[in-house]
Amino acid sequence: MSESTLTFPEADVRKLEPHLPPKPAARTASPSSSAQRVDAEPLPFVTLTYATSLDSALALAPGTRTTLSGPQSKAMTHYLRSRHAAICVGVGTALADDPGLNCRIAPGGDNEATPQPRPIIIDPRQRWAFTSRSKVMQLARAGRGLAPYILIAAAGPEPPAERRRLLEELGGKYIPLGDPSSSSFFMGWRAILRAVKAEGLDSIMVEGGGQVISSLLGASNADLIDSVIITIAPTWLGGGSVFVAPARRLDGEGQPAAAGRLVNTAWIPLGRMSSYAARSQRPVFDSVAK
Amino acid sequence: MSESTLTFPEADVRKLEPHLPPKPAARTASPSSSAQRVDAEPLPFVTLTYATSLDSALALAPGTRTTLSGPQSKAMTHYLRSRHAAICVGVGTALADDPGLNCRIAPGGDNEATPQPRPIIIDPRQRWAFTSRSKVMQLARAGRGLAPYILIAAAGPEPPAERRRLLEELGGKYIPLGDPSSSSFFMGWRAILRAVKAEGLDSIMVEGGGQVISSLLGASNADLIDSVIITIAPTWLGGGSVFVAPARRLDGEGQPAAAGRLVNTAWIPLGRMSSYAARSQRPVFDSVAK
Repeated sequence: MSESTLTFPEADVRKLEPHLPPKPAARTASPSSSAQRVDAEPLPFVTLTYATSLDSALALAPGTRTTLSGPQSKAMTHYLRSRHAAICVGVGTALADDPGLNCRIAPGGDNEATPQPRPIIIDPRQRWAFTSRSKVMQLARAGRGLAPYILIAAAGPEPPAERRRLLEELGGKYIPLGDPSSSSFFMGWRAILRAVKAEGLDSIMVEGGGQVISSLLGASNADLIDSVIITIAPTWLGGGSVFVAPARRLDGEGQPAAAGRLVNTAWIPLGRMSSYAARSQRPVFDSVAK
Repeated sequence: MSESTLTFPEADVRKLEPHLPPKPAARTASPSSSAQRVDAEPLPFVTLTYATSLDSALALAPGTRTTLSGPQSKAMTHYLRSRHAAICVGVGTALADDPGLNCRIAPGGDNEATPQPRPIIIDPRQRWAFTSRSKVMQLARAGRGLAPYILIAAAGPEPPAERRRLLEELGGKYIPLGDPSSSSFFMGWRAILRAVKAEGLDSIMVEGGGQVISSLLGASNADLIDSVIITIAPTWLGGGSVFVAPARRLDGEGQPAAAGRLVNTAWIPLGRMSSYAARSQRPVFDSVAK
């Protein structure tokens, strides 16, 4: 809990800003970002962000936390958290990292509080046995972060009463998704985002881990993404690491085709050891990718 | 054969130059680059260069040529070829791509010829059944490239006489490596580089494919590399593609550790759709990578 406040330089803020959701003030002044969508369904602005090695790995092994990025990119991550209403990780990351999921960026003015994003944990099977000592709960209790909303499959059992009480006491909650009478624990991204929006959260930053990222990058979900920000460290983690890639895509003739291609790309060098690919307006993905 | 001449902008040349082998004039004026090596063995200056997707793939499938880079990075590749005495690919690339392996960069002055690198094909088992119609042979015949030196295992049979005649007629040759009395077709990188140097070639650019690159990046070979230049396209090729990664490395305690980490990194944006990680002086790899 001895973590210090981070500062993200104003010059870098300016470079990133075109790739971020509208600020709260702008949101009321102009139509929401979802107005640009082909579908009219109101979904939150979705930013996918992750840090990889040159060999597209997130960590050396499942359940291992591997530091790939430098101090500048850490500050960027926290700046991004300050600019989103919610941040999302899969249960694997919650289990592996005991993450804080709060924002430690220095606030803009003296009287301003650091804006805290709402942690969203995707945990269909309730594998995350959090306690009051879990980092995110400690931070919520200390007023330095928000308690999580945990997305669980409605098909599963009721969460344990004590755990629910702990969660709700801190301002968090369980959100059951799907059909309670079905036997499916599958959660589609559209349903997840609809649930997030229903909570009044109009932007979400998806941070990890490997499965969550790869599935969001998949052909059937990629059109839900508004912005992608990737940090690439000049490191190879090597074979057997936790690898990120969307599933194979086949073209109309059944031939392998590129799974996705970013458009409107900008490279933002950030520190000695890493750089970013980012992008702004839709479409994120080139639909004629091949 | 209708390929046109390429131009690589002077401004980009200046950014790349610190990462390249000494120019021929500089080589005679000063001690060779290999003088900086810890080992005193004279080996060529080795530049490893490849283009990947964001998910570290070279191509959609083995034996498939996938265009990842844009016109600027193509021009860069040919500029790099003009700055190396040799370029090296594995037999897989020779079979899949029928590559020209020549340099099409515009020469510096009116009377200057485009400098052509010597193609080096690593083909221990003589799988490459080239003919006079193979692109590299056609270019050599037309005086627009050099015929290859083909590294074969001394343990294997003599190459077919007719094929050897075709190769030698154009200025190429077979170079047997290893012990003819052994049954091993394995070729180590040190032996390969020693053979290249023995031919008077004092710089080599290793271009592909996946196996060649991954093996050169392996922990036991990485200290042979002088420079690494990677183009990263903002594309995901997806699962099942031809993936590049060095083998898993374990630390002193048997735990997974980063396979390699570049030092002295520079990011060079080149065109809308790609960027480069490059580096200069030894060590390329951080030996305390973890």
